[in-house]
Amino acid sequence: MASTTKYPVVDIHTHVYPPSYIDLLKSRSTIPYIITSDGSLRLVILPAEDTESTSRGRPVGPEYYDITQKIAFMDKHSVDISVISLANPWLDWLPTEAAAEAARSLNDEVERECEKYPGRLFAFATLPLSGGGAAIVEEIERLQSLKYTRGVILGTTGLGKGLDDEALLPIFKALQDAKLPVFLHPHYGLPGSVWGERANDYGHVLPLALGFPLETTIAVTRMILSGVFEKAPELQMILAHSGGTLPFLAGRIESCIEHDAHLKAEGKLGEGRKTVWEILRKNIYLDAVVYSEVGLKAAVQASGEDRVMFGTDHPFFPPLEEEGGKWASVETNYGAIKGALGSGSDEAKGALGGNAVRVLNLTI
Amino acid sequence: MASTTKYPVVDIHTHVYPPSYIDLLKSRSTIPYIITSDGSLRLVILPAEDTESTSRGRPVGPEYYDITQKIAFMDKHSVDISVISLANPWLDWLPTEAAAEAARSLNDEVERECEKYPGRLFAFATLPLSGGGAAIVEEIERLQSLKYTRGVILGTTGLGKGLDDEALLPIFKALQDAKLPVFLHPHYGLPGSVWGERANDYGHVLPLALGFPLETTIAVTRMILSGVFEKAPELQMILAHSGGTLPFLAGRIESCIEHDAHLKAEGKLGEGRKTVWEILRKNIYLDAVVYSEVGLKAAVQASGEDRVMFGTDHPFFPPLEEEGGKWASVETNYGAIKGALGSGSDEAKGALGGNAVRVLNLTI
Repeated sequence: MASTTKYPVVDIHTHVYPPSYIDLLKSRSTIPYIITSDGSLRLVILPAEDTESTSRGRPVGPEYYDITQKIAFMDKHSVDISVISLANPWLDWLPTEAAAEAARSLNDEVERECEKYPGRLFAFATLPLSGGGAAIVEEIERLQSLKYTRGVILGTTGLGKGLDDEALLPIFKALQDAKLPVFLHPHYGLPGSVWGERANDYGHVLPLALGFPLETTIAVTRMILSGVFEKAPELQMILAHSGGTLPFLAGRIESCIEHDAHLKAEGKLGEGRKTVWEILRKNIYLDAVVYSEVGLKAAVQASGEDRVMFGTDHPFFPPLEEEGGKWASVETNYGAIKGALGSGSDEAKGALGGNAVRVLNLTI
Repeated sequence: MASTTKYPVVDIHTHVYPPSYIDLLKSRSTIPYIITSDGSLRLVILPAEDTESTSRGRPVGPEYYDITQKIAFMDKHSVDISVISLANPWLDWLPTEAAAEAARSLNDEVERECEKYPGRLFAFATLPLSGGGAAIVEEIERLQSLKYTRGVILGTTGLGKGLDDEALLPIFKALQDAKLPVFLHPHYGLPGSVWGERANDYGHVLPLALGFPLETTIAVTRMILSGVFEKAPELQMILAHSGGTLPFLAGRIESCIEHDAHLKAEGKLGEGRKTVWEILRKNIYLDAVVYSEVGLKAAVQASGEDRVMFGTDHPFFPPLEEEGGKWASVETNYGAIKGALGSGSDEAKGALGGNAVRVLNLTI
């Protein structure tokens, strides 16, 4: 049952592990990989999770790989359209020679999932990052022929040196020219030392609540500082988790740039530099996965009410107790939009779906 | 010449290196220390700065140690009252046996600086952190007898293991009982690996613009998770740089806590837990050193219009070109308050000074 609202609700932050990706991870014996424990699958993607214990990795149920469960989730939460993306760690880890074919196969498989529910599913594709520049650009060109693909998902390491790596510029330009937005998503977090000796006392809170958004903030700031947005001026980035913390820190970043003696001496502060605010309003879109009115308002004020897009992060953050009702994590993000922008307002409708339909051209 | 406005403007984030602290740093040969280069003093406080180059460390002029320059800065920028604090790295690095006496001497010296301008200067004191719990608690008790001291400044390492260290609890309780707010300020940043190979291309921007606020966010979140605010329920924290990124991330932190299976299994999600929002509105104050309306609004919405306090971060972030006019960094923070809260509004007056006068009892 689709939403009965009069405007589409679009979820742009919603993940899948297609069956072939599950098989790929099952065939491995080092992270990232999937183990079978007590008859159920567990995904181990971070070194800290790879321990001989009952909490090794995290359970992977059919909500990760069965597309009918995605549709059921959408129906339950009044989501009309989902733009699905592979969850981390994508294909960052594949051997060079295997990357191109794996990406093609995976992107085609996701495309076929979208075909099963015409108009309800679109996709962000996965790049063969370990395959080298030519393979990546070739896949970007091929993606333009896929009916349901509307962009690519990208982690923060790029080719291994981060997103301020000059070797990435041809890739960013190819994405710009293909008009394929980049959905920037964290995975690697921060070095474990920053969480302190007691980190394990706090479950996954520190790396999930802080590591992810801080990683995104650092990655996009390095892009800004390296001049990506001057060199690929039409590049479109959609930042996960409302930009990590970029809306809140934009003023400090801009002030630190303007006060930096080295940048001034290097002639980097003159005409032609796009400010952080200009980049936020010209190149950056923000999802609305921020779990508060405070954060959502900051996102809207920083980037513009026409640049923020609802998301759920499904299948992550399910309720701790199976009650069959709506997920609190989703309701919190719905509530943030309605609280910050006004229930039923044009701004809320834009954030809930209108912006995504316009920016990602979600019609078939 | 003091401000001609009808309400006091109070700067709660403004640093000094008193003359004896300069002498202490001059006497050392490893970081933190002060070198003399071409006849001028340079302060080296971070490993990355300690290189044999013309940019070793940073220049330390009289604006750091001459209190008349603080007053001149205040007059130029219409600041009526400053609550001065030692800049990082404080006394974190002193040998155990030297800590207590150094802290007493330093805090008394700052007190004498305040006495020179009665009513215009108050102070956050420095704790002898390396001196051990008894020495620290003893100094906290002594501070209550100092006429101009209104709290303490604290970095993020505490006794060496971070602020979620159980050994800090008696210290937090002593500060609570003494009604001395803690001004939490970053210094150590994040591990250099997160900035990537090109970090030096960007001057000091990444560690200053991101490392500092992210460090603060991590430190206070670790305090929240360890239950400090339940165990010392009246503890008052003033967070530098508007909480780092806490106002923006509070929703995500709260959601991650509520969805954490480990915390639930440990019985940590039941009654008695203060939510992040409750802590923001009960235990936390935020300075207004955030350089944008977007950030300032988020700070006010998260913590409350009566809990945000103007600051300048003087003597850091001077204009790159000596023009004799007002500092852009200060004007940006003034503008953020006026833009976000309305010029001349009661809320703006509170943020500019009224809140600080009330919370810190800035009368003599």
